[in-house]
Amino acid sequence: MKLNIALLAGDGIGPEVVDQAVKVCDAIAAKYDHEITWKPALTGAAAIDAVGEPYPDETHEICASADAVLFGAIGHPRFDNDPSAKVRPEQGLLKMRQKLGLFANVRPTFTFPSLIDKSPLKRERIEGTDLIILRELTGGIYFGERGRKDDNHTAFDTMTYQRFEIERLAKKGFEMAMKRSKKLCCVDKANVLESSRLWRETVQAMEKDYPEVEVSYEFVDATAMRLIQWPKGYDVIITANLFGDILTDEASVISGSMGLMPSSSVGSKVSLYEPIHGSYPQAAGKDIANPLATVLSAAMLFEDLELTKEAEEIRRVVNKSLAEGIVTEDLAEGGKSYKTSEVGDWLAKNI
Amino acid sequence: MKLNIALLAGDGIGPEVVDQAVKVCDAIAAKYDHEITWKPALTGAAAIDAVGEPYPDETHEICASADAVLFGAIGHPRFDNDPSAKVRPEQGLLKMRQKLGLFANVRPTFTFPSLIDKSPLKRERIEGTDLIILRELTGGIYFGERGRKDDNHTAFDTMTYQRFEIERLAKKGFEMAMKRSKKLCCVDKANVLESSRLWRETVQAMEKDYPEVEVSYEFVDATAMRLIQWPKGYDVIITANLFGDILTDEASVISGSMGLMPSSSVGSKVSLYEPIHGSYPQAAGKDIANPLATVLSAAMLFEDLELTKEAEEIRRVVNKSLAEGIVTEDLAEGGKSYKTSEVGDWLAKNI
Ligand SMILES: CC(C)[C@H](C(=O)O)[C@@H](O)C(=O)O
Ligand SMILES: CC(C)[C@H](C(=O)O)[C@@H](O)C(=O)O
Repeated sequence: MKLNIALLAGDGIGPEVVDQAVKVCDAIAAKYDHEITWKPALTGAAAIDAVGEPYPDETHEICASADAVLFGAIGHPRFDNDPSAKVRPEQGLLKMRQKLGLFANVRPTFTFPSLIDKSPLKRERIEGTDLIILRELTGGIYFGERGRKDDNHTAFDTMTYQRFEIERLAKKGFEMAMKRSKKLCCVDKANVLESSRLWRETVQAMEKDYPEVEVSYEFVDATAMRLIQWPKGYDVIITANLFGDILTDEASVISGSMGLMPSSSVGSKVSLYEPIHGSYPQAAGKDIANPLATVLSAAMLFEDLELTKEAEEIRRVVNKSLAEGIVTEDLAEGGKSYKTSEVGDWLAKNI
Repeated sequence: MKLNIALLAGDGIGPEVVDQAVKVCDAIAAKYDHEITWKPALTGAAAIDAVGEPYPDETHEICASADAVLFGAIGHPRFDNDPSAKVRPEQGLLKMRQKLGLFANVRPTFTFPSLIDKSPLKRERIEGTDLIILRELTGGIYFGERGRKDDNHTAFDTMTYQRFEIERLAKKGFEMAMKRSKKLCCVDKANVLESSRLWRETVQAMEKDYPEVEVSYEFVDATAMRLIQWPKGYDVIITANLFGDILTDEASVISGSMGLMPSSSVGSKVSLYEPIHGSYPQAAGKDIANPLATVLSAAMLFEDLELTKEAEEIRRVVNKSLAEGIVTEDLAEGGKSYKTSEVGDWLAKNI
């Protein structure tokens, strides 16, 4: 297969982790006879520095015409504590999601047998966890009207949802549930928010089309609790943009390491693959960041292109590296650790 | 001291748990020579059934003229899955918070030596946790404009914050931090939301008035993760209404049982004390609900009235009941368990 993959390294540790995923993908391509053309493009703080905005048109062209996008991370602390900054790296991320129509963020949460004791949670609570949070990604309070009023003394943001946005996401949720344990949980705050009531109403109306799926409804505060108490109770969770942002990061704790959790952001034309960890600026340039989340995101990329063998090969070699202790310092527990680039080399060599 | 306490039992297990707190308070009053006059009033689904609305004016009068309000829980499942219900128990809660001006919800999170192994989190992660989440309670998306548009196909909610609302809460946060470990963490989503940027800007401007307090800023998604990974890293957290709703429930997991976590909702005139668990309708009327969160909320009530000895006496007797296994079935771990009312009687007798 010929593949054009847009390569958005981004900020902080983004470039380093993405490099390792490229090595792995190239090794896969060599073994399974694919031809990958990488199309690097600027994004985030890196793009602001270079061309003055975080998601330049040229980057969009490259992404829109690619078969998939591999993404590192964006964000830089120099913008975080400056509430008055006019251009922010995150705007690039949001613009990208919106312009590429990446409406569903898919974040699986699972445990790794060799790492299960690294989790702050007790083994018996998490062993066997296998859930997916499907976060709506192009609507809600991330994209509603916002601003200041009353001479700068009032600020507001609007959480808006249209029925079709909810339907589109829920459809994907029902379909995923059908391929898994047939359980769907809609998480909202319908006891307070009107937009959540629209979510609940919309999902309820779709239940009849998927009679085999057992549907439940939870308030987001309760889910924030239950997700930690008993993650095995969940199969597929669907939720709004902001709730998903919070719950997916929270869920990453289960596996014991954010450095391992991949994600995809699915659009109707092109999809994007990225680690859920951020740009982690303190580690940037030190060749110490854990590349596995990005490598596993590349596995999701192959999976979505129905290159299942390739995806499985990547997961196999990742598990092998964990089992053999070929890991970065975050996973080394005082034992021998490897550099980011060494882990990437090892993975590529073992494919 | 003469005390008028409004007694809002509410729905579900509310009446049962509140009854036990009353027994305990009466025992305290007898021992320390106070005179408590209880003023029962209707709220929640119970009030809807009786008089058609969840926070009747009469209830408000009773609360507004009381020295404090002791509250059970409200909410009933019959309203939850009916997105079209016009009157909801939760509206009563929100109206009460607003009309009484209960702007700060104080939720301590701590562990109980005798229960620490009940937590889904590993002992070494949580032992010694002592943090307070201060949730803004009368603003934000809970009270902004909301509605439907486009022929019912669009729904919206507005998150609005005024500078004085943030200042008022932050002031309380700084003051609490000064009496504790002098660490304040402002949790927001300033990389996306304008209202969060107003939060950050406002808190930053207040830093100079509390030079001894070490202030940090975090995004809510990161906090949702770190709260579980390392709760001991926090002292006082201040945050917006919706974020606080999610984070406080999440934090309750740390202690291993929601049945134990008290809270206060502080206003400029009167304050309200309530367990953080909900109305738990499945258990209602069975005399099995854990009353300790409500009893410990009563301890917060005495504390706020500067009746410190009384507050300590309540905490002492609660710890004693835990140590001696005089607990409801949720804490009994297959061992002998006691009824809600039996636990209340035991506590009162041991004061
Ligand atoms: C960087 C930020 C805008 C972003 C989000 O909130 O969506 C991030 O937290 C994420 O989850 O991808
Ligand atoms: C019942 C509900 C409206 C309420 C809230 O969201 O504030 C509850 O979850 C709470 O935290 O007290």
